[in-house]
Amino acid sequence: MPRRENVSMSVIRRLPRYYRFLRYLKKTGVTRISSTELSAKLGLTASQIRQDLNCFGGFGQQGYGYIVSQLCDEIANILSLSSQYPAILLGAGNLGSAIGAHMSFQEEGFHLIGIFDQSSDRIGMELANLKIRDVAELEKFCKKEKPVMAIFCVPRDAAAELAEKLYGLGIRSFWNFSHYDIAMQYPDAVVESVHLNDSLMTLCYRISN
Amino acid sequence: MPRRENVSMSVIRRLPRYYRFLRYLKKTGVTRISSTELSAKLGLTASQIRQDLNCFGGFGQQGYGYIVSQLCDEIANILSLSSQYPAILLGAGNLGSAIGAHMSFQEEGFHLIGIFDQSSDRIGMELANLKIRDVAELEKFCKKEKPVMAIFCVPRDAAAELAEKLYGLGIRSFWNFSHYDIAMQYPDAVVESVHLNDSLMTLCYRISN
Repeated sequence: MPRRENVSMSVIRRLPRYYRFLRYLKKTGVTRISSTELSAKLGLTASQIRQDLNCFGGFGQQGYGYIVSQLCDEIANILSLSSQYPAILLGAGNLGSAIGAHMSFQEEGFHLIGIFDQSSDRIGMELANLKIRDVAELEKFCKKEKPVMAIFCVPRDAAAELAEKLYGLGIRSFWNFSHYDIAMQYPDAVVESVHLNDSLMTLCYRISN
Repeated sequence: MPRRENVSMSVIRRLPRYYRFLRYLKKTGVTRISSTELSAKLGLTASQIRQDLNCFGGFGQQGYGYIVSQLCDEIANILSLSSQYPAILLGAGNLGSAIGAHMSFQEEGFHLIGIFDQSSDRIGMELANLKIRDVAELEKFCKKEKPVMAIFCVPRDAAAELAEKLYGLGIRSFWNFSHYDIAMQYPDAVVESVHLNDSLMTLCYRISN
């Protein structure tokens, strides 16, 4: 993959979608697909798809198309999905529990190794095959296990202090579901935010206009 | 709000963020803020913020700034957050349950009026003050209650059929958490998608590169 350096984030953000779709094709027994067929299914132009994949070397063959399983593996490679970065989940409330139970972290590059909460109701309960730990154990745990990424599902009031603590413990990547702007506060951190409220409000606007 | 017609989606997508932050300021007792202060807190330039808000008429006064509660109300107005569109939730598994229990729909323009699942384990259980209904009742329910929006938390295998059914019942807006591409299939529908897997894979790429 020689031209991997200068790939724009908008190309990168399309790759998971290609990957999801190709994995689905693979599961349903499709072995080969042309960029034209891919484009029809994904609502992108065939030339856009070819261009995107060419950023990484280009895997297709003119007039033959892409081999589904090969392209699937290549994209997994580009996205580094076999990394198994150790991750911890902060906050095991409604949303945190759902994220912990619902996601297939291992398929997406991560390995969930610890879950923390501050509520005595939740500490000790099981979630995603892990026992929920007291957040008071966070420092000791991080020093020993060295998690790389934190899934941040905490209420706004607790967010600033906890983000500072995690940053102080060396964590530089965050999957942020909170309203706290981690990226603003720590410009050298890698932050992907999921703002459910914003998405819902945008939907409300679009329905209304 | 005279210039509301030609506002770009990128402006619209910033409004929920302004709104969230202003609501937080209001809650903490801040009554007035300048665009410069806003910009420092939000990581946007002051001129960007002024420009965004000017799309809707411009509420600030030079040298005085914005009145927090007024600007908050105006943005809520622009986003139509008082609409209370009747919404239904499809799929009460891990993610659907969390969405149902976690979100403050009324604050974001919607009113959750029904929850549907196909699993006998879940039907009859309570979630977000509603009893989970059998998806077999969907048609009857929709004809009577006329929901406007569907929150779509169903597995890929069930998605295509269910989306078709909802569309057939007149639903044209979707908050889509599934892997199924509703917008592709129904170009006249308003779809906001939340792809948690894509976000996680993108994070994995960014950590690795």
